[in-house]
Amino acid sequence: MTASLLSVEQMDRAAIERVLDRSESFAEVSGREIKKVPALRGRTVVNLFYEASTRTRSSFELAAIRLSADVVNIHQTGSSIEKGESLRDTVQTLSAYDPSAIVIRSPQAGAAALAARFTDAAVVNAGDGKHAHPTQALLDVFTLRRRLGSLDGVNVWIVGDVRHSRVARSDVTAFTRMGAKVTLAGPPTLLPREIETLGATVTPRLDGIAEADAIYVLRMQNERMHESFVPSLREYARYYQINADRVRPGQLVMHPGPVNRGVEISAEVIDSKQSLIGEQVRAGVAVRMAVLYELLVGTPPLATDGEEVSR
Amino acid sequence: MTASLLSVEQMDRAAIERVLDRSESFAEVSGREIKKVPALRGRTVVNLFYEASTRTRSSFELAAIRLSADVVNIHQTGSSIEKGESLRDTVQTLSAYDPSAIVIRSPQAGAAALAARFTDAAVVNAGDGKHAHPTQALLDVFTLRRRLGSLDGVNVWIVGDVRHSRVARSDVTAFTRMGAKVTLAGPPTLLPREIETLGATVTPRLDGIAEADAIYVLRMQNERMHESFVPSLREYARYYQINADRVRPGQLVMHPGPVNRGVEISAEVIDSKQSLIGEQVRAGVAVRMAVLYELLVGTPPLATDGEEVSR
Amino acid sequence: MTASLLSVEQMDRAAIERVLDRSESFAEVSGREIKKVPALRGRTVVNLFYEASTRTRSSFELAAIRLSADVVNIHQTGSSIEKGESLRDTVQTLSAYDPSAIVIRSPQAGAAALAARFTDAAVVNAGDGKHAHPTQALLDVFTLRRRLGSLDGVNVWIVGDVRHSRVARSDVTAFTRMGAKVTLAGPPTLLPREIETLGATVTPRLDGIAEADAIYVLRMQNERMHESFVPSLREYARYYQINADRVRPGQLVMHPGPVNRGVEISAEVIDSKQSLIGEQVRAGVAVRMAVLYELLVGTPPLATDGEEVSR
Repeated sequence: MTASLLSVEQMDRAAIERVLDRSESFAEVSGREIKKVPALRGRTVVNLFYEASTRTRSSFELAAIRLSADVVNIHQTGSSIEKGESLRDTVQTLSAYDPSAIVIRSPQAGAAALAARFTDAAVVNAGDGKHAHPTQALLDVFTLRRRLGSLDGVNVWIVGDVRHSRVARSDVTAFTRMGAKVTLAGPPTLLPREIETLGATVTPRLDGIAEADAIYVLRMQNERMHESFVPSLREYARYYQINADRVRPGQLVMHPGPVNRGVEISAEVIDSKQSLIGEQVRAGVAVRMAVLYELLVGTPPLATDGEEVSR
Repeated sequence: MTASLLSVEQMDRAAIERVLDRSESFAEVSGREIKKVPALRGRTVVNLFYEASTRTRSSFELAAIRLSADVVNIHQTGSSIEKGESLRDTVQTLSAYDPSAIVIRSPQAGAAALAARFTDAAVVNAGDGKHAHPTQALLDVFTLRRRLGSLDGVNVWIVGDVRHSRVARSDVTAFTRMGAKVTLAGPPTLLPREIETLGATVTPRLDGIAEADAIYVLRMQNERMHESFVPSLREYARYYQINADRVRPGQLVMHPGPVNRGVEISAEVIDSKQSLIGEQVRAGVAVRMAVLYELLVGTPPLATDGEEVSR
Repeated sequence: MTASLLSVEQMDRAAIERVLDRSESFAEVSGREIKKVPALRGRTVVNLFYEASTRTRSSFELAAIRLSADVVNIHQTGSSIEKGESLRDTVQTLSAYDPSAIVIRSPQAGAAALAARFTDAAVVNAGDGKHAHPTQALLDVFTLRRRLGSLDGVNVWIVGDVRHSRVARSDVTAFTRMGAKVTLAGPPTLLPREIETLGATVTPRLDGIAEADAIYVLRMQNERMHESFVPSLREYARYYQINADRVRPGQLVMHPGPVNRGVEISAEVIDSKQSLIGEQVRAGVAVRMAVLYELLVGTPPLATDGEEVSR
């Protein structure tokens, strides 16, 4: 029975901490001149990407390579997906290669869980529609815990387009389980009602943001403007952009990338010492190494007992 | 002198059996935790793909990786093919890297043979237009022989769009050389006259399909409908779909993938125990490892004496 | 402090010769059955390509692989570049992986220098707009020096679309620094005035081409015709095509590829014994191995003292 990582909901605090602790040791490996360990030598990892992604794809690829696995990349372009093959058939086909893991990104919520039903490989959700992005949440928690020592009692404000963000959903759960207090802020049109059920405070205003220890800025996608969720990007920036006027000394700033300089976040904040954005990317490789390691060779197998456990 | 694999026509039964026997040992390697042998360490294999392909490309890539070769993928997109470079010049360019093998897929019949004229590398035809797909035929023979022990006297029905299928062409030859009796069935518009010369029986009706030991279902491509070879996919499915009504207990069902669920084959047949489709994909890696191995390091060199031998 | 290779202008003759000498030893490695050395084992090289390229991309990829580095390819398609991420942010993101080198190709002049400002990795310019293509120039010099022993006093004619050619710019500098005398010839509309400042003779006519020891043919891009730089490709070919009538015995012919057979160069010349085109491609891997090696592990670090030194 192989466990899969479909969402952070399936992980309790102990499971999250186990991944974070393992990530610390892999962060050390990535700092070495020879950035490799033989843990997954001779094993196959399939990267199945139905969406464009520079950083998530390359981060997973490097994570697998640095564990000495062999990686096969399958992109939407140049694949039989163009011929209309269903996700199920694609996953069953790829499973015939006996991969240890299938890393999947898809615009469809639930794609990773669906994939996990049709393969014996460990499935790692690399982002499925608006649903979840668990490794992003784990690397965010890793980055902030590393800086602050602990997340217990830490105030995290997540700002921007919560409605369309799988990152926001996964981060609320991960930060909360690690003891942080999360506030979601953004234009009312971009703050879905049901999000309160995840345990976060919701507010349409940035008034109280000075209380935040960390401000997590969400990406503002151009297409949202066309969809009339916001009147214009300029209007959005005026009320919600995280810039020098809104960040007080000592606060930390995070962003899942890619950034829109001058839209949801100002250039000066991105490049300031308070920004953890580079740390987040760096953490991505270590955390993904840890996830693959714990799913594939960890003993005992990584506990994935939550509601969304795959099998 | 490097031999190439351009079509199964060039292989006699002894050469086919040699590849199949070697494939058995590589199938064992792919079942291990460390799925690698050092046979081609430090050698270069170029995958030159002018057509989209999930499974053939990834299968060849994994085959080369599991033999410890280094693989360079060249796709039609993002390559100088876009700048109008001819196949000849592309092949000569890639040959300057001293690759051991060039694996080529192209929409043009004869592309692999043309490539073989301009390189010292072994050329492996991964599908050229409607002409040939020899490794598909070898993996089909491997899969069926493995299940049945021998193909001598076995009845194979190949059903569907024979006209546009390089798989059908290569399979008729491979199955026949291994002692099987092949029947081709499909709409008259999709059964070219000249196919009888390959040694198969041809029929527009499925009446006698109960006699088949194995039913090989060809992919029905949407574009054929637009080209008026069939009135509609629904009409095609009514008369030729391989479904539970047409498959008797004990018959085996094969398909080269990707499948169109509910068009040329029903979902229940795909997912039944009689289906060898997953086995075919799994066999693909082992058979392609065997082809690369026998062409590059087999002793004596793989006999490729037929009409289409490259050099 | 990591040095970068942004243009050949930054290299003096001693630095060029050091790369050429190192290339000789790597050319020997590429001729072996096991085409690998462990020099960069466990290190990461990022190929960041914003333009289509078969040969430059695959040549750099093979160079890194044959040095035992791990390579991550980032193409314009399927990347966050599509999401509008700036070059700066992309480079900073990729730098968080602690790559030893970032190889960058871009349609924008200055992209490599810009990238070098935002990373600690060595940046290798794999072609930036019309500005420079230093590894092409180095492999051209390597190929010709190998054939002739020395470039001192050698006559090189570079023929064709000088205006749009980063290759011409880099080659003039590299050949000149190695002691050759360079003449640029082509239609007046394609010969920019300022090119004379690089130290080459400029002429709109091929009259004196018999004096050349080597003729370097530039690629004639179709789009130039639409831009009205030449009346038609046929007209261009009549006056400037390098063909059997214009090449005397003993002259050597070079081309950066991909060739347009029958436009800037005739098929018979491409395939003649006087052509060094295949040698140039072969040299590309060895020279790129040498560049990566000297930038990353050479002692003392490769001198990059010229005006365009990165840091």
